[in-house]
Amino acid sequence: MTYTAPLKDQRFALETSARLFDLARLEGFEAVEEDLVEAILTESGKLAGEVWAPLNRVGDEKGAVLKDGVVTLPEGFRDGYRQYVDGGWGSLGGDPDYGGQGLPFALATACQEQLTSANMAFSLCPMLTLGAIEALTAHASEELKQTYLTKLISGEWTGTMNLTEPQAGSDVGALRTTATPAEDSHFPDSWRIKGQKIYITWGEHDVADNIVHLVLARTPDAPAGTKGISLFVVPKFLPDAEGNFTRRNDLTCVGLEEKLGIHASPTCTMSFGDEDACVGFMVGREMGGMRAMFTMMNHARINVGLQGVAIGERAYQQALAYAKERVQSAKIGATTRDPVAIVDHADVRRMLMTMRTSTEAMRALAYANAAAVDRAHALPEGDEQVAAQGRADLLTPITKAWCTDLGVELASLGVQVHGGMGFVEETGAAQHYRDARIAPIYEGTNGIQALDLVGRKLNMAGGAHWKALLDDIRADLPDLEPDQRAVMSAAAATFETGANWLTDPDRGANDPAAGAQPFTRLSGYVVGGWLMAQQAKEARRRLDAGEGDADFLKAKIASADFFILQLVPTGMALLGAVMAGEGPLYAIADEAL
Amino acid sequence: MTYTAPLKDQRFALETSARLFDLARLEGFEAVEEDLVEAILTESGKLAGEVWAPLNRVGDEKGAVLKDGVVTLPEGFRDGYRQYVDGGWGSLGGDPDYGGQGLPFALATACQEQLTSANMAFSLCPMLTLGAIEALTAHASEELKQTYLTKLISGEWTGTMNLTEPQAGSDVGALRTTATPAEDSHFPDSWRIKGQKIYITWGEHDVADNIVHLVLARTPDAPAGTKGISLFVVPKFLPDAEGNFTRRNDLTCVGLEEKLGIHASPTCTMSFGDEDACVGFMVGREMGGMRAMFTMMNHARINVGLQGVAIGERAYQQALAYAKERVQSAKIGATTRDPVAIVDHADVRRMLMTMRTSTEAMRALAYANAAAVDRAHALPEGDEQVAAQGRADLLTPITKAWCTDLGVELASLGVQVHGGMGFVEETGAAQHYRDARIAPIYEGTNGIQALDLVGRKLNMAGGAHWKALLDDIRADLPDLEPDQRAVMSAAAATFETGANWLTDPDRGANDPAAGAQPFTRLSGYVVGGWLMAQQAKEARRRLDAGEGDADFLKAKIASADFFILQLVPTGMALLGAVMAGEGPLYAIADEAL
Repeated sequence: MTYTAPLKDQRFALETSARLFDLARLEGFEAVEEDLVEAILTESGKLAGEVWAPLNRVGDEKGAVLKDGVVTLPEGFRDGYRQYVDGGWGSLGGDPDYGGQGLPFALATACQEQLTSANMAFSLCPMLTLGAIEALTAHASEELKQTYLTKLISGEWTGTMNLTEPQAGSDVGALRTTATPAEDSHFPDSWRIKGQKIYITWGEHDVADNIVHLVLARTPDAPAGTKGISLFVVPKFLPDAEGNFTRRNDLTCVGLEEKLGIHASPTCTMSFGDEDACVGFMVGREMGGMRAMFTMMNHARINVGLQGVAIGERAYQQALAYAKERVQSAKIGATTRDPVAIVDHADVRRMLMTMRTSTEAMRALAYANAAAVDRAHALPEGDEQVAAQGRADLLTPITKAWCTDLGVELASLGVQVHGGMGFVEETGAAQHYRDARIAPIYEGTNGIQALDLVGRKLNMAGGAHWKALLDDIRADLPDLEPDQRAVMSAAAATFETGANWLTDPDRGANDPAAGAQPFTRLSGYVVGGWLMAQQAKEARRRLDAGEGDADFLKAKIASADFFILQLVPTGMALLGAVMAGEGPLYAIADEAL
Repeated sequence: MTYTAPLKDQRFALETSARLFDLARLEGFEAVEEDLVEAILTESGKLAGEVWAPLNRVGDEKGAVLKDGVVTLPEGFRDGYRQYVDGGWGSLGGDPDYGGQGLPFALATACQEQLTSANMAFSLCPMLTLGAIEALTAHASEELKQTYLTKLISGEWTGTMNLTEPQAGSDVGALRTTATPAEDSHFPDSWRIKGQKIYITWGEHDVADNIVHLVLARTPDAPAGTKGISLFVVPKFLPDAEGNFTRRNDLTCVGLEEKLGIHASPTCTMSFGDEDACVGFMVGREMGGMRAMFTMMNHARINVGLQGVAIGERAYQQALAYAKERVQSAKIGATTRDPVAIVDHADVRRMLMTMRTSTEAMRALAYANAAAVDRAHALPEGDEQVAAQGRADLLTPITKAWCTDLGVELASLGVQVHGGMGFVEETGAAQHYRDARIAPIYEGTNGIQALDLVGRKLNMAGGAHWKALLDDIRADLPDLEPDQRAVMSAAAATFETGANWLTDPDRGANDPAAGAQPFTRLSGYVVGGWLMAQQAKEARRRLDAGEGDADFLKAKIASADFFILQLVPTGMALLGAVMAGEGPLYAIADEAL
């Protein structure tokens, strides 16, 4: 039930897959040095392992409780959050003009992974705040930034995203919450917000002093659909005459969902303007809400993908500890009949290797994706910047969908390693299996991610971004060991064939949608395999040069071999499904299903 | 949340994959006629849908409760069980000499599937009874049969299997419960049982009047390991002087597990002989316990495999109903922008088709497996009987492992179809995801099943059984449509290559174990694909002949196409892992994992 941050692999993935120290050459990232990175990962890992991880079980058992509009977290959460704020962990990637440390998103991602492994439900609180920070940084007025962004970056206040309404889930454009201009002597340029939002993560709680809700709403006479949506800051507390935030805004948490997992993350139904007195401030321009939402979402999608990494890591650590401790039966082929720890049984080891190597590949992908975001931010305008943005755009739906699907599968394997003990709640393995299940759903279901990948991202810039990725993969092939090269060469061809098929203008309009999910999974394995191959190559280089931790580097090569030779082919096997078109999916009529 | 028995597909699978009406030609099965089968499936389906299914949610929410050694089920369970007994559902497959109806196991399997879909936790009660019936039928003395078997077959009493102890899980031979001969004037030839057993399903409850525990224990001076184990009947109530079963035996439920799912199935810690007065009766000969246990287990393993089928069906029905009701977004490529039911979105349809066709393939396998057991029972001694037994032996671990792994994956897809609603417990989709997770664990973990397949079953009779299966698969190839033929021909070759590799005597002793899990999954897809191809062929024949329900038959052909062309290749992709040997699994030392 303990968690130890996997510092060596995090560091290696940052160096190799995110190329973090290359980033340091870009304007604004000069502070990124080896010692700083080491110190940040170590200290953040301590907070995660020593403070947040021990709260994971009580958070699951007791969960968030709603009474009279007040949501209370179990004992320890408020203090755990205070330590997060005091350590400055919320400000890592924030804009220095508003109190942030201006460090790369890739590095912040590694810290966020640790907190998520330690306590997924709790980690959603800062994760949602990060989304709000992104949106305000990109779109808010200077005044809103000074008031709200600074407090979000410091972590003193937390943020939320209010999108979903009962009739508007994946179809955000169907939302009905309204915003009308308010003549308000207290708050110039304010709006009256009215409506109900559901599934609002950390929408109400007691771990911080104020909550900054970002709310999508429709202004008077706005057109239907997504075009008519604007974004508003709607704080729980408004400033009083002295400028202190003591004045309760007209918004309430009216319900909490009873969920399968992440019980310590309050999933709120929020009611805005029951008394017609809910004050909000517009972010950016009117009808600019969807653009602002996508700003929030792109970071959030990488962070949710990271949840797959994090839960995979946590489940692996727990399963490994159990497998080393549980003694049962002799090893097949052993000379003695003495029972051994089950970690020595081939089948258990296969489960552990699947968990370990998949987690490493996912981590490499998530960090590479975050680093592409950093490059897109920091590079001067030009081809390289465009390419970085394209890479970030392309990888984001893969990170979100592939990593979260695998997170569920690995947590399930973690239960299996425990045998009967895995099905007993006390052990804790089952909590990961329950917690992991939300990640493929929220922040855009994985079906929506797949559509984003094949419908938008593959077609951006005439396919230049996926072709650039393919070129990068192929450029590395000559350096690989022959076994890895054979698989990755075929994998690259599979990706190319699939992408060409899906983007062929002669396809029926719904054919790419039919192949979207299998192509996304296939892409995860291809890109994951490529990044693992790169890591193996770097590990060999360091071993040859006598640098680094030899045991770690040898293990990395073995991980890459296992992932590429045994797991990547399962992704490649989806090519037939990718190119089957919509026909087989509709061959049975609705009534006969 | 409702359940309707899939009568058409059950009937079709019984006819085509189990060849039920061929069975009717064997001695003892003469009663198997169309009308009877139809009546049984229909009535059993009513009990499942109308009585047991409505208890599924309350069973999950309230669960079984232990107080002072008494376990109470929620209201409705006692009555639901009484209706099961009154309908004679427990006696379908029982020996007519002891009150059974002597019908094929394959037919009983279809009924058990319905009850399991309706209420998996509840269905474990009759399922464990069926295991006890098998063991007593095969091994008990006439006296024990008259006393206990008759009551188990009628369903008035329920049965349990007491194997596991804390130190003896997969390694049953490590058990320590003792049996010593008792000089007991009340009960001649009785034994004193003493020990503690864990994970005893339905070990204590209030839905029937007596519980017949089958307990594995070690007699004095018995050798260590599995060879020294004997089996005992240990009833909760013993007969008093008048022969009424009112005398409480010295056994108690001392604890219930808090589990991830199947909350209405009491998982008991049972203590035998705390007062040194626990009376048991030996079943079969001393030290014959393991053989008797395997008798119980073989049927139980098929029935647990069936849980994968059942939960897949239930999750599919629930997801389909939601998908037809939930309206969200326009269909891609549609001429209007009107939102449609999500069942029309390609990605949702892919999830539904995966659930539907996988469930159909699993059903075909489970029924074919049960029918092979029937043939092995009913055929006169000779080659055909040996072949039938070999087929049953070979398929059992595949049914157990492949179907239960898929059950988890399909229940997970069922959650996903619901989007955010799937993560909310009220919807019920999450219950299936939680319930499903036990099936890969109990009745021999799926890792144990895989070892059974590659270590024992592939090698039986010099490989004759798997070669016979392969011959059957290949014999059907010429009749298939070209697309299906191409895949199934390659699939058969994959199975052959894998089986040859795993049984090559030159392999290291642990190499087959290393490939066991992927080979078992691969086998599931190959055999499932073959049975679906057979069903498609029969569907085409009936369509051409103008027989049967055309909509159903056309849907069956579409199902087979989807399963074979899009899912079977994912199983074939595991061949590399099958043949990788143990090396890659141990390439990272324990300490470096």
